[in-house]
Parts: sequence; structure tokens; C-alpha cells
Amino acid sequence: MLSSGRILARKTRRKGVTIAMNTMEAIKARRSIRSFNANPVEEEKLQAILEAGACAPNGAGLAVFYTVVSGDSLEAVKGKAAVAMKKEEGFDPFFGAQTAIFMSAAPHPLGIDVANAACSAENMMIAATDLGVGSIYLLGFLAGILNSDETFPSFLGLDEGQKPILCLAIGYTDNPPAPREVAIKNVVYLK
Amino acid sequence: MLSSGRILARKTRRKGVTIAMNTMEAIKARRSIRSFNANPVEEEKLQAILEAGACAPNGAGLAVFYTVVSGDSLEAVKGKAAVAMKKEEGFDPFFGAQTAIFMSAAPHPLGIDVANAACSAENMMIAATDLGVGSIYLLGFLAGILNSDETFPSFLGLDEGQKPILCLAIGYTDNPPAPREVAIKNVVYLK
Repeated sequence: MLSSGRILARKTRRKGVTIAMNTMEAIKARRSIRSFNANPVEEEKLQAILEAGACAPNGAGLAVFYTVVSGDSLEAVKGKAAVAMKKEEGFDPFFGAQTAIFMSAAPHPLGIDVANAACSAENMMIAATDLGVGSIYLLGFLAGILNSDETFPSFLGLDEGQKPILCLAIGYTDNPPAPREVAIKNVVYLK
Repeated sequence: MLSSGRILARKTRRKGVTIAMNTMEAIKARRSIRSFNANPVEEEKLQAILEAGACAPNGAGLAVFYTVVSGDSLEAVKGKAAVAMKKEEGFDPFFGAQTAIFMSAAPHPLGIDVANAACSAENMMIAATDLGVGSIYLLGFLAGILNSDETFPSFLGLDEGQKPILCLAIGYTDNPPAPREVAIKNVVYLK
């Protein structure tokens, strides 16, 4: 049996950007990808992924800002990450992905900035899965860069007062993870 | 033309819990509902929504805990919210919804607890939309209760060290919001 990742890839090749996957299938098929190949995400798929992000709720009316980073700029971020995290040159926090999407917002005391960015990120990851594109959400290296490089928000094109919150790496993988059984757990019912 | 909410409701009536909506349709059709009627969410739909939540990424391996609150327990939470927010008796932060799902986790210095809970919440909101169920994510009243009632985590069945992060209200509405055009905005490209 083909893995769901391979089925996705096949559907995508056949039908292009307009494939219509079952919502629960896409939610279940999403897996964090930690090995991307060098194939870039096509522009129309990137736009569909960004559109999905824009559909997420904006708690407290707090807007999320997106910086789509690729090419030389992505190499520059890798260099900053290596310095911040004391890694050797060649360190790649994006697992080989050719495109990273940083999400940023004005900090909110209740964490609504983080919640909005994460809702948007999840929408983008589900849409990516639907399009046969792999993804992973990343936070640790970003905190490292922010601790060591105060110019990073401006590098990302942010205005004063906006802070990067999290990052998605998106791309294709040669090793789609096997499907998994997801069990409902850690639930308490109060009636 | 029927609004997408009404189309959803009709599909749901016809096909029950097994309808297969296009992923992007569901992502686009999700709207924050601020007026729920008294119809409870069916048990099989609640389980499908919780299953979608369980499919979200768990950054840093940090588990999300769920407390599903209804009935007298939901009335008790409304009372706590009224006290915390200095509102009159009858205050309902859930907009009439009969079911609330609280998400909790151990606090993480980088906000991974909030990101994980929000990714899970977004999955649940998309799945709910797919099933014709309305939803809204809520944060403000919860912060109010936590500031004024230190027993609330234990009320939710949480263990020491776990903190409520956000809350979903889910249910049905008699006034589905009109479809909207979503525009990609606030995007910077760095190549």
C-alpha cells in the first residue's frame, strides 16, 4: 500500500493545484517533515498556502505578518542560526527546505499573537498537505536568533514593535512518513 | 445563493458525520461564530473534532490536555467568568454554546505550549466547519478567571504544573455568517 504522502504526491501530479482532498484526510495526513529535497514549492501552491493562512482567526484583531524567505536570503538566515546556536557552517534548521515562512505580530500579554500565528500556521500546514507539500513548524532556532541578533526583525521586513513568532519550512520530501493511527487522549469530560 | 454555512448545514443533514468536504473549502468557510443556539453538538461529531485536534503537531513533544465542559459544569464556568470579569449574573462568554473545550499544557518559555494548543484548536475548528458545526476560539475571559481563581486548573481536571491556555466554544448557529473574500496581505518576499 502506498503511504498517504505518496498518494498525495500522485494526486497532485495528476490534478495540479485544484485537487479536492477530504478535510479530515488532510488533517490526518499532515506530518512534520524533517527531510526535504531540493524541489522548490511552485508559486501557485505557495499562494494557495498563504491564502489558507489568511483564513485563520485573528483573535483581538491582531494581524499576522508573513515573510516568505528563499534563495540567498534563506542562506543568510541559516548563517545567522548557525552563529546563534553555535553550530558549524552548513547548519540547516530548515531540514533542506527551499522556502521558509516566518509569522510575526505585535506581542500581546495574553499570548494572542502566538495563538493567531499558530492557527494560521496550522491552516497553512493542512493546505500544504492537501497540495502534496510537506511542512514543519519551527520555533527553537528562531528564539536563538532573536536572542543574539537584534536586527533580525528588521531583516524580515518587520516594522517597529513586531516580533517574529514562529516559522514554517515547506517543500517536498523523498521520504514521506508512514501513515499513523491518531488516538484521542488526555481528555477529561465535565458535565 | 445559499451562504456557505447553510450549504454546510444542508450537507450535514443529508450525510451525517461522514461528509467529505474539500479541504480548502473548509478552511475558507470557517468563521468565528458569536451566536450559538441551544442545540448540542452530537457525540460522534465531538469525537471527530477531538480526533482532528489530536492530529496537530506537538512541538517540543509538549502534550495538550483537553477538558470538554458542558451542562452544570459549563454554568459553573460562566459564574466564575462573571465574577472574574465583574459582569452581571447571566454573563455568557461562550455566546450561547452548549459545549466548551479547554486546552491546557505545561507552560514553555518559548510559547510552544500556546503554539501547540492553537494548532490543535485550528484543526478542531476546521474539522467542526467540515461537520457543519460552528466554533470560536476564546482567550480573554480565561485569563480573567485564571487571575482571580487559582483553583480553576484543578476544576478543569489538570495536574499540578499544567495551565489552561485557550478555549473553543462549539455548537450550532441560526445565523451563519455570509461567505467572505479572503485576501492575502501583509506578506514580504525575501529571495
